[in-house]
Amino acid sequence: MAKAQEMLDTYPRSFNVDAGVLARTIEALIECASTCTLCADGCLSEPGLSPDLAKCIRLCSDCADICSTTSRVVSRQTEYDANVTRPLVEACVSACRSCADECGGHAEHMAHCRICSESCRRCEQACQELLSAMK
Amino acid sequence: MAKAQEMLDTYPRSFNVDAGVLARTIEALIECASTCTLCADGCLSEPGLSPDLAKCIRLCSDCADICSTTSRVVSRQTEYDANVTRPLVEACVSACRSCADECGGHAEHMAHCRICSESCRRCEQACQELLSAMK
Amino acid sequence: MAKAQEMLDTYPRSFNVDAGVLARTIEALIECASTCTLCADGCLSEPGLSPDLAKCIRLCSDCADICSTTSRVVSRQTEYDANVTRPLVEACVSACRSCADECGGHAEHMAHCRICSESCRRCEQACQELLSAMK
Amino acid sequence: MAKAQEMLDTYPRSFNVDAGVLARTIEALIECASTCTLCADGCLSEPGLSPDLAKCIRLCSDCADICSTTSRVVSRQTEYDANVTRPLVEACVSACRSCADECGGHAEHMAHCRICSESCRRCEQACQELLSAMK
Repeated sequence: MAKAQEMLDTYPRSFNVDAGVLARTIEALIECASTCTLCADGCLSEPGLSPDLAKCIRLCSDCADICSTTSRVVSRQTEYDANVTRPLVEACVSACRSCADECGGHAEHMAHCRICSESCRRCEQACQELLSAMK
Repeated sequence: MAKAQEMLDTYPRSFNVDAGVLARTIEALIECASTCTLCADGCLSEPGLSPDLAKCIRLCSDCADICSTTSRVVSRQTEYDANVTRPLVEACVSACRSCADECGGHAEHMAHCRICSESCRRCEQACQELLSAMK
Repeated sequence: MAKAQEMLDTYPRSFNVDAGVLARTIEALIECASTCTLCADGCLSEPGLSPDLAKCIRLCSDCADICSTTSRVVSRQTEYDANVTRPLVEACVSACRSCADECGGHAEHMAHCRICSESCRRCEQACQELLSAMK
Repeated sequence: MAKAQEMLDTYPRSFNVDAGVLARTIEALIECASTCTLCADGCLSEPGLSPDLAKCIRLCSDCADICSTTSRVVSRQTEYDANVTRPLVEACVSACRSCADECGGHAEHMAHCRICSESCRRCEQACQELLSAMK
């Protein structure tokens, strides 16, 4: 899709971070947000919907919200403020890890949880690379 | 990215709409939401920020919010309710058109507006294809 | 809370709509978004979580997303574009009605659904008043 | 508005935190999210829109997004995971502080910035009280 990279190439000021790392992180965040929304809905449609799936639905909903907001905040380069961006990306790493762990536990019997878990792991790693690049 | 298609392939119930059309629409929506967020930020960083750019920033902010919410609502297949999904997708078509028009007017001198305008047009068209497929 | 009214009183331009009607609608939208998020979570925590509750969780999630985005779009007065705002508020009316109907059906045995249903009805009505005021 | 408290009173399980503190935090978060959206729009409508206001618009946009997502995540009590909630509330404290500082600097000549700054301070404090109550 590389659309984030194409947009960042047109940014009228200079960056506070490597634009390639930033573009990959934005792509990982919006993919993870979308995958988590789809996984929560997949769980909700399971014929065996029961309290056993409540944790997965809850974490996928949180992770979708947090990744979506993080994608917006890191996309904004104007007057960058590390006090806003850094703690949020750290919170996103932690949310992706929790969701990946939970979905990973259901991966064998629900394929949407397997794909979602992989998406959360990639996003967790992309956010950590962004944090390193922001140093 | 084709991640939406991969997730839809694992959905545990049957669909109320063609899954290929739906997957393409989800991808167009999340790309457009991201591009609009980046375009609003690009405008905000322009050295010539003035009231002339207020309309573009405002419409990009609206379009980002509406496309993001629409991507979530159409992703949810569980207990589909046309009274929720259809008017929202129609509102999204209209928002994408307004934003594409406004950004298109700045396309010659701001490259982020040119790319954003194209992204909004693709999203407008994808949403219209989804509306046709939902009939 | 009347915070929206207090903020609108400081808006540096003139309004395209009655500010009192707008302020009440913003308050109804953010209350409804919050109530729907809490109702979806209440359903998810019910000891009897089963496919019977999937529709309620799904509609509350949609309604929370749509009311939240609508609250942002109607809050923005800069360079007002009726083609963006009006169809979205209409979509919000329809989403609130669907969610109120579904939660209303559970009102007798789940108190969170009763309160959520009332909140959706108030929001539906506030949005309709805004639509009339926008004429 | 006290709607969050009324909803929390109907929650079908027990809480991991004092419900009164949680309700006040939810109210502060949704008020702050709304106020920041209105302040960004107020700035955008200022006759003197220039690069001097870019930082304020950017931080208000971030703070609106972060407070809105935080209000959703703390509202979810089902299968509470401190690894998700705590870092996000900490990130929200930091975002509210940055936005309050920036808007506070414009408070004398833009009334929307004065009200927004106060709203961010209240939200920062409410989030810190929630963090203490979560211990």
